[in-house]
Amino acid sequence: MIETPYLLFLGDAPDSLAAKVAQGIKDWRPENARGQLRLEGCKADLRLPDMTIAQAVEAGVKTLVIGVANRGGVISPMWKSVLLEALDAGLDIASGLHNLLRDEADLAEKAKATGRTLHDVRVPSVRYPIANGKKRTGKRVLAVGTDCSVGKMYTGLCVEKAMLARGRKATFRATGQTGILITGDGVPLDAVVADFMAGAIEYLTPDNEADHWDIIEGQGSLFHASYSGVTMALVHGGQPDALILCHEPNRPHMRGLPDYTLPSLEDVRDVALRLARVVNPVCQVVGVSLNTSALSDEEALALCKETEDRLGLATIDPFRHGAEKLADALDAL
Amino acid sequence: MIETPYLLFLGDAPDSLAAKVAQGIKDWRPENARGQLRLEGCKADLRLPDMTIAQAVEAGVKTLVIGVANRGGVISPMWKSVLLEALDAGLDIASGLHNLLRDEADLAEKAKATGRTLHDVRVPSVRYPIANGKKRTGKRVLAVGTDCSVGKMYTGLCVEKAMLARGRKATFRATGQTGILITGDGVPLDAVVADFMAGAIEYLTPDNEADHWDIIEGQGSLFHASYSGVTMALVHGGQPDALILCHEPNRPHMRGLPDYTLPSLEDVRDVALRLARVVNPVCQVVGVSLNTSALSDEEALALCKETEDRLGLATIDPFRHGAEKLADALDAL
Repeated sequence: MIETPYLLFLGDAPDSLAAKVAQGIKDWRPENARGQLRLEGCKADLRLPDMTIAQAVEAGVKTLVIGVANRGGVISPMWKSVLLEALDAGLDIASGLHNLLRDEADLAEKAKATGRTLHDVRVPSVRYPIANGKKRTGKRVLAVGTDCSVGKMYTGLCVEKAMLARGRKATFRATGQTGILITGDGVPLDAVVADFMAGAIEYLTPDNEADHWDIIEGQGSLFHASYSGVTMALVHGGQPDALILCHEPNRPHMRGLPDYTLPSLEDVRDVALRLARVVNPVCQVVGVSLNTSALSDEEALALCKETEDRLGLATIDPFRHGAEKLADALDAL
Repeated sequence: MIETPYLLFLGDAPDSLAAKVAQGIKDWRPENARGQLRLEGCKADLRLPDMTIAQAVEAGVKTLVIGVANRGGVISPMWKSVLLEALDAGLDIASGLHNLLRDEADLAEKAKATGRTLHDVRVPSVRYPIANGKKRTGKRVLAVGTDCSVGKMYTGLCVEKAMLARGRKATFRATGQTGILITGDGVPLDAVVADFMAGAIEYLTPDNEADHWDIIEGQGSLFHASYSGVTMALVHGGQPDALILCHEPNRPHMRGLPDYTLPSLEDVRDVALRLARVVNPVCQVVGVSLNTSALSDEEALALCKETEDRLGLATIDPFRHGAEKLADALDAL
């Protein structure tokens, strides 16, 4: 667990997109986003109070989160003095960068000397068990996609928000770096050793109250040649009662695989349900989440209606239209 | 690659079963099994010449292979003097044990001083790429099982033997520790980090001659809640042209999962084929391999015939009856 609240470090972000991790935290856990720290030349702005390290400590911040993608995979020397200052001032640091904080000798040494924690959320910090497949109490819903990066994390966060708003018990369970930084906890599934993938998801979604929903962040796609094994571990480790199909229309091919077209929603429905029922025979597909960010309002609504009519499943862009329909579908289960 | 030939170290094996890795090497690569080394109290005997380290060196041995499962996961002090002597005498050491040779300070130091290699085949020695899903030349067949440990490795080795015997180009591709020790090469798939699983299998089965068959060792099962993600990576990374279904009759439940019954061969056929065709639309299921070790001769033949009639697929216990029928099926493809 990463201690909250956060100071969001935007560094010298060249544009808003580079700060999308910080944006996600602000969007989904605004109560954790106490302020932002920007270096000279930073082109991103979350419209949070700009704070120095000292001001952040004063404001009760516990952790500096690196909310920006760095250039070329290295921790910039420009960042170092700020990070060292944060440790000296009593803050932990959390990062989802490929190159690890702990591998930077000066940071590791300073953290040790000051007794602070460096959270490298890209690598597992837990020895996960082998999955045992035992039936767990509580309810679970998993987002499964036609492709990578079609909006599975946003779908899960939207559904959590809608469920909590209507007084249901629900917890978004992060399985990727951004989700972990947003929520402060989770499993970096793509970095887990093969044998322990499904067990990591069982660990993440343990026994719970009968009316509690774990909303599990999906990863990859059962139809993605590079990452399907990761998705499979989510389907079997997650033991879902409900699946939400996620899709982005208008993609010319699978992400990173120019030779592969996307499967249809029907394909994903049939294959994912068949596999999910191995571990949970009553699993149902409850709805469809479309990422309509490239469509006009009219096009988006028309596509949702066409999809809903075709599949007979509640269909919505939850980020655009709210996730009420999907929450209704979970309530109805 | 592990240098051959081998001296098979049986240690103080309490019974024959404990030496099954050594037995596998002797059965499948007899030309590599130059001799055995047994300590006092060893109850296993491969009927190979007993050799001291000095005799093994004399006989041209290059590597001492730990062919025995140790007790309690520790490298016994009884073994240490032999292993140190082997390094001193110029041999490499290969091991598939959970606890690693390289983590033993005295072995690591001696290997460094003598310039020898410690092969811990349980952990990857390569940085595998992310899979790209690109169509590769050459043919590939993958064994997929109803469960773990139903005979997928033996099926692959039997098929390789039958194919080579009839003059075909074929290579068994190991994906587990025992297979790697038998063949001297391969990918320890269950120890690969999630994101790189499918890429590791692409790396293992690269472009080849059009009439060459890679015979890929299967792992786990698409229906095994603990390991299905590993199996999925084989199906998508392996890009199989042919699948062989592997099954052991009479299992009361999935291995390690008392709450799960086995899927039918029809289930495995349908699900595996659907998924394999994502990466290779012409993939076919070509046959069934039954592990009939618990059946009488009559029962075994009757079950093969019944299965063959039911599924319309060549069915055999390749270890008992030879793999000719499966080789025929590959030839016919």
